Amino acid sequence: MKQYLTNDPWCVVEDGFHPQYNEVTESLMSLGNGRLGGRGNFEEKFTGKTLPGNYVAGVYYPDKTRVGWWKNGYPDYFAKVLNAANWIGIDVDVEYETLDLNTCEVRDFRRVLNMQEGYLERSFIAVLKSGKEVKVNAKRFCSIVDDEAGAIRYSITPLNFDAKITITPYIDGAIRNKDANYDETFWDEVRKETGYGEAYIELRTRKTGFHVVTGMCVEVEQNGVKLDYQSQPIKYEKYVANRMTLDCRQGQETVIFKYAVNLSSLNYDSDELLKSAHQYIQRISRKGYDKMLFEQQQAWADKWKMNDITIDGDSDGRTVAAQQGIRFNIFQLNQTYTGEDERLNIGPKGFTGEKYGGSTYWDTEAYCLPFYLATADQKVARNLLVYRYKQLGKAIENAQKLGFRAGAALYPMVTMNGEECHNEWEITFEEIHRNGAIAYAIYDYVRYTGDETYLAEYGLEVLVAISRFWSQRVNWSEAKQQYVMLGVTGPNEYENNVNNNWYTNYIAAWTLRYTMQAVDIVKRIDPAAFAELTDRIHFREEKEIAKAKDIVEKMHYPFDETRQVFLQQSDFLDKDIMPVSEIPKGQRPLNQNWSWDRILRSCFIKQADVLQGLYFFEDEFDTATLQRNFDFYEPMTVHESSLSPCVHSIQASKLGMKEKAYEMYLRTARLDLDDYNNDTEDGCHITSMAGTWLAVVQGFGGMRVTADGLSLAPYCPDGWTSFSFKIRFRGALLQVTTTQQTVSVENFSPQPITLHMHGQTVTVGANAKQEVPVVLA
Amino acid sequence: MKQYLTNDPWCVVEDGFHPQYNEVTESLMSLGNGRLGGRGNFEEKFTGKTLPGNYVAGVYYPDKTRVGWWKNGYPDYFAKVLNAANWIGIDVDVEYETLDLNTCEVRDFRRVLNMQEGYLERSFIAVLKSGKEVKVNAKRFCSIVDDEAGAIRYSITPLNFDAKITITPYIDGAIRNKDANYDETFWDEVRKETGYGEAYIELRTRKTGFHVVTGMCVEVEQNGVKLDYQSQPIKYEKYVANRMTLDCRQGQETVIFKYAVNLSSLNYDSDELLKSAHQYIQRISRKGYDKMLFEQQQAWADKWKMNDITIDGDSDGRTVAAQQGIRFNIFQLNQTYTGEDERLNIGPKGFTGEKYGGSTYWDTEAYCLPFYLATADQKVARNLLVYRYKQLGKAIENAQKLGFRAGAALYPMVTMNGEECHNEWEITFEEIHRNGAIAYAIYDYVRYTGDETYLAEYGLEVLVAISRFWSQRVNWSEAKQQYVMLGVTGPNEYENNVNNNWYTNYIAAWTLRYTMQAVDIVKRIDPAAFAELTDRIHFREEKEIAKAKDIVEKMHYPFDETRQVFLQQSDFLDKDIMPVSEIPKGQRPLNQNWSWDRILRSCFIKQADVLQGLYFFEDEFDTATLQRNFDFYEPMTVHESSLSPCVHSIQASKLGMKEKAYEMYLRTARLDLDDYNNDTEDGCHITSMAGTWLAVVQGFGGMRVTADGLSLAPYCPDGWTSFSFKIRFRGALLQVTTTQQTVSVENFSPQPITLHMHGQTVTVGANAKQEVPVVLA
Repeated sequence: MKQYLTNDPWCVVEDGFHPQYNEVTESLMSLGNGRLGGRGNFEEKFTGKTLPGNYVAGVYYPDKTRVGWWKNGYPDYFAKVLNAANWIGIDVDVEYETLDLNTCEVRDFRRVLNMQEGYLERSFIAVLKSGKEVKVNAKRFCSIVDDEAGAIRYSITPLNFDAKITITPYIDGAIRNKDANYDETFWDEVRKETGYGEAYIELRTRKTGFHVVTGMCVEVEQNGVKLDYQSQPIKYEKYVANRMTLDCRQGQETVIFKYAVNLSSLNYDSDELLKSAHQYIQRISRKGYDKMLFEQQQAWADKWKMNDITIDGDSDGRTVAAQQGIRFNIFQLNQTYTGEDERLNIGPKGFTGEKYGGSTYWDTEAYCLPFYLATADQKVARNLLVYRYKQLGKAIENAQKLGFRAGAALYPMVTMNGEECHNEWEITFEEIHRNGAIAYAIYDYVRYTGDETYLAEYGLEVLVAISRFWSQRVNWSEAKQQYVMLGVTGPNEYENNVNNNWYTNYIAAWTLRYTMQAVDIVKRIDPAAFAELTDRIHFREEKEIAKAKDIVEKMHYPFDETRQVFLQQSDFLDKDIMPVSEIPKGQRPLNQNWSWDRILRSCFIKQADVLQGLYFFEDEFDTATLQRNFDFYEPMTVHESSLSPCVHSIQASKLGMKEKAYEMYLRTARLDLDDYNNDTEDGCHITSMAGTWLAVVQGFGGMRVTADGLSLAPYCPDGWTSFSFKIRFRGALLQVTTTQQTVSVENFSPQPITLHMHGQTVTVGANAKQEVPVVLA
Repeated sequence: MKQYLTNDPWCVVEDGFHPQYNEVTESLMSLGNGRLGGRGNFEEKFTGKTLPGNYVAGVYYPDKTRVGWWKNGYPDYFAKVLNAANWIGIDVDVEYETLDLNTCEVRDFRRVLNMQEGYLERSFIAVLKSGKEVKVNAKRFCSIVDDEAGAIRYSITPLNFDAKITITPYIDGAIRNKDANYDETFWDEVRKETGYGEAYIELRTRKTGFHVVTGMCVEVEQNGVKLDYQSQPIKYEKYVANRMTLDCRQGQETVIFKYAVNLSSLNYDSDELLKSAHQYIQRISRKGYDKMLFEQQQAWADKWKMNDITIDGDSDGRTVAAQQGIRFNIFQLNQTYTGEDERLNIGPKGFTGEKYGGSTYWDTEAYCLPFYLATADQKVARNLLVYRYKQLGKAIENAQKLGFRAGAALYPMVTMNGEECHNEWEITFEEIHRNGAIAYAIYDYVRYTGDETYLAEYGLEVLVAISRFWSQRVNWSEAKQQYVMLGVTGPNEYENNVNNNWYTNYIAAWTLRYTMQAVDIVKRIDPAAFAELTDRIHFREEKEIAKAKDIVEKMHYPFDETRQVFLQQSDFLDKDIMPVSEIPKGQRPLNQNWSWDRILRSCFIKQADVLQGLYFFEDEFDTATLQRNFDFYEPMTVHESSLSPCVHSIQASKLGMKEKAYEMYLRTARLDLDDYNNDTEDGCHITSMAGTWLAVVQGFGGMRVTADGLSLAPYCPDGWTSFSFKIRFRGALLQVTTTQQTVSVENFSPQPITLHMHGQTVTVGANAKQEVPVVLA
């Protein structure tokens, strides 16, 4: 854990310069608007530790697959999100000295990510080698109003000298991906252009052929007056800039405004890109920095009105840390994905880093979908489902590659366009539970929204294809006289190629059960659609259902009779069972200290596995079962997956284990802020941030949606006086505020809503509020 | 299987040109002399399918490790044998046409590897586009007398024209490795030199800094008279040549003699290399081609006198195929490793290809050692053991990297210098049974030679270190109340990360047992050495032995009560058990047709695993046990490892399953000749060739060495009238000749030897012969 940042309810604050953690800070202070974004890099040159990163949503590159020995079925490429042109750069030279915080003395450094208003601000005094002191203030944002643009206000004040200062705002397309397999570059230059204070560059990705135009225009002010400066255009390979040399006087502030756009051929005709960039730049520069910033603040205020979770309590660090944590998570989720473009999905690092290739994982279905279901318009969640529906053909092809037949689908573990692009056999070929999560998301959506038509339109087709996969993937064990599933990797990736992973076996059988239900639903609500589908996908109803029933009935679930717990996989109890507390000091995180084989044969668990199943299928198990399994597995869990603590926090809340719930909440909410797993430098764990939200709303708030509708069972964690969240449910917008004693639900919609609170059925009138006492578990 | 070659008892014959199989033929017709060697490439330019390859023993390059996601403990590099300078090249231009068998008509093509005399000969008539017909005869060898040299006789005869023919003998160091991870080249040029008919180039490997000088000198004859030709020296980057244009008349043969040397800094001071190459070239060119070839024939005749296995029978294809197969295997083994240099080992492809990096595998101990024990001077086998002893320090470091302590050693899976250089976690970290094979080799050597002093000098130290590894690698299973070994890959690499691989558990416990015996032996024969060792390696005798005894006593061995067979690993019987015969046609080899996960969860076995254990530890099991396990596992075995069929052949012989033994013999003997696994194009399976020898001597010959000494139980396979092999045993040289009725043993040594034949104790007098009847199993 690293705790060098100052806690603040609305901001992430670095007070004083911490160059050793700069890459971590850069991750945390990333900006984004759903279409573009980047890390909290410095505008001026910096030769210290830094991971430069600017990204354009949906623009990727199919890099060569890197493997030890090739195995049949490996994907042809490994997709990666591309580091795109650097549009933030502003080089500063004070006479013959380059401003570089790595080579000068830095005073009064402060970097603040303002989450309330959506901008990043940085100020410092640099003492150059010559003794010259310069004060800098830099503020920038990615506009969520003009969502292909960003703007920067960069001010320089000489403190103890008069001098000519040379300023070089630039766009640099000669960037590299840190994770490029063979040190290759991925962009080719198409054209570039410079004008008075303006510069444009058009780049094209190799292979995928995406075009992106990045443009900028620069204004300068001194004494609050726009300056008519002279600029020298500079063009290198994939690089354009405008250099200007300005007379700067001691104590006088010179302000550079840099407006930038990134337009991609995903949204424009390639031929029109440059022209559109010109127009966009003109429009935003006319609008001006102050107005853009004002609109940004307004737009973020609107978002917060819908999404904010507030936590009140003593003004001690505990409440502030908790408040900052949840806001940081909500802020990053809102920066990453807006749900408006069904071609996009939620990359595990969002716009905060390259790692994991920016592709779609099961995280989307298992963690993010519930967040969007409860906080966004229903179409956002639906778009996430349709994204997978559109990739069904490729999922069937993928399964064929691995030897499955007759319309069986295996969705990829990692994908950009529906094709698998991860290449470790134990993940790609074996972490097949992802297929279950995609089925589960359909169920989750229908349960939450009540929208059964989705099944008829898209859902059933996906369910049948996934069920076909499970039916072929199990085999009959003569020894056990049951169906088994051999050679899988479960959610706990610290086990590979195991037999009968309980979670996978369970979700497979569950998928078969739910598919049978979905068949009945679609037959009932839309027989014509059912007939059409049956015909189109050659659904042999009788035979396929009979097989499914047989598997459901005779599936093997490893179980320990002594402890009465489900076993994560066959033979789990052959391990040397011990709690995490017995791991010697200095050896965590395990994945940075132990060899892989040692991790694999240890009992330690990366992330919820059996417990993940008990979370998804809570209704099918009693609380005593949950408690036994929680007590067995949680002490062995190292939570080295960002997706782990949230599930444990929710379950601990349900079990009345308030301290554990809170510990796990902090771990998920402050995972990146405190760098628990020593990997935030690579970027933030975006998808797990939805899990943080779940830890509050489903955990502390006890929110569930079942066949009976919405229910709540909130309690207020110790040390908080109250907390409040909003959820949408079937057209209603509710605010739930919980104190140590009471829960109030305010209904902002024009019709009453009935829900269950701590076991009572409560109806909250239109635009009314209801209060009930808190009942502890 | 490919059967385009003509069977012949002494030669490998390609009659007619088969360009589609050229890479296979090139592998089969490789030449080597233990120090240098290369594939059966053409001398003249060839633009068709070809894998150029020339290699210098011991010269390697640590290429970058190529992995998907990095895991702790992975090696820093992947060693590979280097493609070295091409010294065979002779370009031929007939006026303006380049001789290239890919672009002209080829008639009367014949390529013959003469194994009896150790040379490769090729002849053909090429009809050029212009209609000109040229007859070529090319003959070359790598001398086993002058073992850093090769020589070529290349003759050209214009059949229907007079013309100037330009000949360019060259040395090309601008070669590439096909398996270079990042398309890098591995050689830098140091210097080059040309003289009249001579050319030299000195190259240095990157990183490892090996220097190799390759030199040539060229003579030309017409009408049997040495020609005083004019030559033009040519130098390019890493390339030297001498070009000469010769007047050639219709029907007149022009003969080029090219003498070449490859001297490496392994054997010469770098500064002296070029000078030594000059001297070497002078010496061999003075000796001349004919004398060199004569000496080569003599030297091979001597080798065959010691090593040959003869098979007599009907002149039908069956006997010839069998005879050719065994000779091909013996020939390649003799070409690859002579045992004279303890720094060298036996690369899996020898000088026939790049694959598997030319490094040392457990193949050496498990398969090659018994061959050298029985056919070479005792010091050859001892050198193979000492090679590992010298790498013990690195094996201990390797184990430390993976978390083992207190002097535990894990030998690398693949190595050049003792460091691990393979990088798949399921192999590198988990295929730990190799450690057992290294311990077993010590036992095998001592048992065969009776040389217990080896234990005191080197062996015990290795055994203790390996035993320490096993003691730490097992863990106590509370569930089983036994020791288990989790997360291993056994010899059958079509299973990864399994629990309680029977073979690995067995060899681990056996190592502990044998280490305890070795402790007793060394204490008895050399107490001072024991005391010194105890002190040096901090051997806590009482404690370590107590732990070892406990593990030996309580080790878990998976077993099926119903079938009374050992189980390859825990839960093996959950698989869908079926014989190989149920694999649909066209899906073999599995590794070229099935995805990895499908292979893993199938029951199909790549190579002997339980049976490998029953082979090593035959004395500890009765024949009925072997029979039951053989009957269970063999039908599930696809033999996609070259190391598999020989073990099965030996066991089938022991079980009296003569047809199976013969089928498996052909599969191992003719694995490459018939390209069973469709991978001979990458090179031949050198290490498994020792297994072929074992299939004859231990299989058909029933040769065993036990505490009782040497025993034989030969039978003559159907269709053979007799077969004969020679073995060395403790100073004696014996020839064993078996007909359908009798076995005779001829003792070529000056003292009598007592051995067991078909259960009888027989003494064969000095320089005498004994005959007993064959008894069938």
